[in-house]
Order: sequence, then C-alpha cells, then structure tokens
Amino acid sequence: MSRPTHHPFDHVGVAVTRLDEARSLYELLLGAEGSEPLELAAQGVRVCFVGSVELLEPLAEDTPVGRFLVRHGPGLHHVAFSVPDIRAELARLEAAGIEVIDAEPRPGAHGLVAFLHPRSTGGVLVELVQRDG
Amino acid sequence: MSRPTHHPFDHVGVAVTRLDEARSLYELLLGAEGSEPLELAAQGVRVCFVGSVELLEPLAEDTPVGRFLVRHGPGLHHVAFSVPDIRAELARLEAAGIEVIDAEPRPGAHGLVAFLHPRSTGGVLVELVQRDG
Repeated sequence: MSRPTHHPFDHVGVAVTRLDEARSLYELLLGAEGSEPLELAAQGVRVCFVGSVELLEPLAEDTPVGRFLVRHGPGLHHVAFSVPDIRAELARLEAAGIEVIDAEPRPGAHGLVAFLHPRSTGGVLVELVQRDG
Repeated sequence: MSRPTHHPFDHVGVAVTRLDEARSLYELLLGAEGSEPLELAAQGVRVCFVGSVELLEPLAEDTPVGRFLVRHGPGLHHVAFSVPDIRAELARLEAAGIEVIDAEPRPGAHGLVAFLHPRSTGGVLVELVQRDG
C-alpha cells in the first residue's frame, strides 16, 4: 500500500488527578506557559496544554480518563499525530486492518480528532488530529 | 525561579516486544520510514526511530525496558524533551525538588540523555536530551 505523507507528532497526552498542580509542574519542567484550562464535556475531561503536553483531568471517575487513572494512576495516556485529512486517514488505516475507536471524527481541543485502539497499535492509544484551518 | 528557554518535544518512547514488527506497524501508521535498528548495550535496548517515535525492544528481561514490559505490557514508555545544556538543566530541576534518575548524563541514541523519576513528574518517565552538535 502506498504511504501517506509523513504524519508529524502533534502532542502527548498525560492523565492527571489535579490539573492546576500538573500545569505548574510542567511549566517548571518545560519552561513553557500553560494554556487556560478548557472543558471538553463530550470527552469527560478538563485539559490544558504546556508546550506539546496535553494535561487531562477527568470530570468524573466514570469517564475514559477517569477509568485510566483508576487502573494505571497518573501518567502517559496517548500520543497524537497530525493528519491533513482525518477521514481519508481513518479509511486508509481501517483498510490496513487497524482498529479505530472513532469511525467518525469528533471535535477535540484544536480540530477534529479520532482515536485508534491500543489493541492494534502495540498497546499505545494513538490519536489523529486534523487541526482547524 | 526564572524559567529556562522552552524545551521542545524531542520524541516519545514506546516499549515493544518485537522491534521489526513494531517498526512495520509504525511505518504504516505514520507514513514514515523507520531508521536502522541500533543497539544501546548500556541501556539494555535495541531501538529504532519512526518519525518522532522511538521503539525500544529490551535486550533481556532483566533490563529497565524488560521489567517495564513484564509489569505493563507494550505501550508508551517515556517522553523526551530537548535541552540546550543538560547539566545546567539537571541542576535547575534538582534545585526545584525534581528527582533525577541520572545525576550524570549518559550517551543516548543522538546525544547525552538523562531521565527524571516518574515519582516527581506526575507518573511520567521524562527524558532530557542534549542533541549532538
């Protein structure tokens, strides 16, 4: 199968229990200013970005990130790559046997997003991001 | 404390059981060609890069990545940020109360590296990289 254009890294997601504390910590680590927290109700998280790090605090225990924290504790949650056309990319990957979580992209912090299932990506929760404009 | 220059993302490390298989998978996912595998005996791993993803296969079970695989299975292992002066950065972070694993930087795939302990970085194994030349 022909290869698509190389998909560059977009961000890495980190599950945290307290967003404000985590933001201060990553500001110290990375020397970057954190963004204002943003609530993504549909995904059950409050997020903020420090450099290339997306910090995710669950809005409740019964959410994907809430369940992740219960099972694994705080830590690396997903890695995201930027794609020019997310629907075409999902179709390409599904045809290649990759299991997608979101057959239909949904709104994320900066554009349309879709997740691939860790079962078919070597245990890594992979997010595709088609950035706005 | 004054902030350093923003430390940009360098790469994300993924623990894998079979490097060749994982390389093919990430080539498919990212549309990028993987690098030739490289053995880092001192760190007990064989690695290759596909885009910004470093795939790490342990040389033995009794290595840091080998133990990670036994405990967690394959998946996200660490995230690395680029710093201009790794010794100055380790000193800055230690002074701020961050626990470092490598007080003295050691050779990595592309320069000097040092790891910070997940205990003091919100459960994330953070690597600092001072790239060669």
